[in-house]
Amino acid sequence: GLASSASGIAALVVAAASALKLKLNEKELSIVARLGSGSACRSVIGGFVEWKRGKKEDGSDSYAKQIVDSSYWPEFCDIIAVVETREKKIGSRAGMKQTVATSILYPARVKYLPRVIKETKEAILSKNHQKLFEIAMRDSNNMHATMFDTWPPIFYLNNTSIEIIDKIHELNESSGETIAAYSFDAGPNANVFTLKKYIAEVKRALKEIDGIKYFIECGVGKGPKLILDEKEHLIDENGKLKKYYINDKNQIILRE
Amino acid sequence: GLASSASGIAALVVAAASALKLKLNEKELSIVARLGSGSACRSVIGGFVEWKRGKKEDGSDSYAKQIVDSSYWPEFCDIIAVVETREKKIGSRAGMKQTVATSILYPARVKYLPRVIKETKEAILSKNHQKLFEIAMRDSNNMHATMFDTWPPIFYLNNTSIEIIDKIHELNESSGETIAAYSFDAGPNANVFTLKKYIAEVKRALKEIDGIKYFIECGVGKGPKLILDEKEHLIDENGKLKKYYINDKNQIILRE
Repeated sequence: GLASSASGIAALVVAAASALKLKLNEKELSIVARLGSGSACRSVIGGFVEWKRGKKEDGSDSYAKQIVDSSYWPEFCDIIAVVETREKKIGSRAGMKQTVATSILYPARVKYLPRVIKETKEAILSKNHQKLFEIAMRDSNNMHATMFDTWPPIFYLNNTSIEIIDKIHELNESSGETIAAYSFDAGPNANVFTLKKYIAEVKRALKEIDGIKYFIECGVGKGPKLILDEKEHLIDENGKLKKYYINDKNQIILRE
Repeated sequence: GLASSASGIAALVVAAASALKLKLNEKELSIVARLGSGSACRSVIGGFVEWKRGKKEDGSDSYAKQIVDSSYWPEFCDIIAVVETREKKIGSRAGMKQTVATSILYPARVKYLPRVIKETKEAILSKNHQKLFEIAMRDSNNMHATMFDTWPPIFYLNNTSIEIIDKIHELNESSGETIAAYSFDAGPNANVFTLKKYIAEVKRALKEIDGIKYFIECGVGKGPKLILDEKEHLIDENGKLKKYYINDKNQIILRE
């Protein structure tokens, strides 16, 4: 998870479960994490995951399930283009509630989603990156469209986000195939999906956009990990950030 | 019409019909104007108009009809906030065709439109500005949402447009009633609807937005007018722009 709610709550749930000596399996961890944040229910699990909607009114049977693990598609990567770090005006949970309550178009999105999920899984299982990338872009646009149709309207993207969208379409067009995709959650930062062999080309194109502050490159994550060795901890026993820590390759990492 | 296609083609059709000595009524003028531009079919007629969809596949029974004439609601006004004048990347006709062909959400918009038209007419006929303004804003957002859901996506608004949207919502909220509305067509410039008594207040709020270049204030138009007196013409007999002309109040207007 990129957002604080996804990564932070996933980490908290895994740490708390361990501290309380609860023996929770992945499904149980996911169900608990979802109470803190929808996106966190996906982040407690590594690899590509599917967030199951569930049937119960109270959401207690809604959780994420792994499709394939993090080693399945090493070529796949995500270049996060960080556009701005200001706090968002409306949180994603409050925004989503408003969309469900007021958007004229939202029911059409709900009807379309089962097809998106089915085709996304097929594209992952067949490692069809072109298919997967197109679905990701269309779904991102579709979601932001329903947000803009909310009353009052919600719009998380800015000029730089729109420039990223245009740039990726240009790049795919000039490449003659879909080598990259953008996807936006509740903010203007882009997740740009591509394959390792295209990273240089994609970054070259994105660097033409002034509004991008910096990039974070990642692959598919393994999910949260308990760090039992104290010297690897990021905070000390008083909860203060440590000036340095030792990573799992035994390197000393200094913090600014 | 604000856009060149609406005002230009409406003027051309009225002028051509007169030059050819065709005795066309308003409905016939509207049908002809529609061939040049959808929006022009509305602009050949004064006052508040309804653009009838028609039933024929070739659109030949689609035209605009007056609801009330331009003198009906003198309080109503439109402040156009001009944001930028660059040429748009995709024309509105080509864009609309793509939206119809590819947007997942567009059918939900089409289903919702008859209600918009009915309620808009009711709000005009009862001079219920609060109702009319809310419908206008929601419909503008709804249309731009389906454009963003087009493949590839189309987005005509920019940061300044979004700031205008936020500002009008703020203004209405702090006023405790809906005193203004925004509406965007295929570009980032805003039509800000309000009543005469609120103009100063609305402009004060909009002036806080840096990206607005200037304002054009208008009321409800009378439709195109044949100018038979040569000294009122804007161009000379060679088709060149004249340095000055005389307006219908007999004032000399210099051009830059």
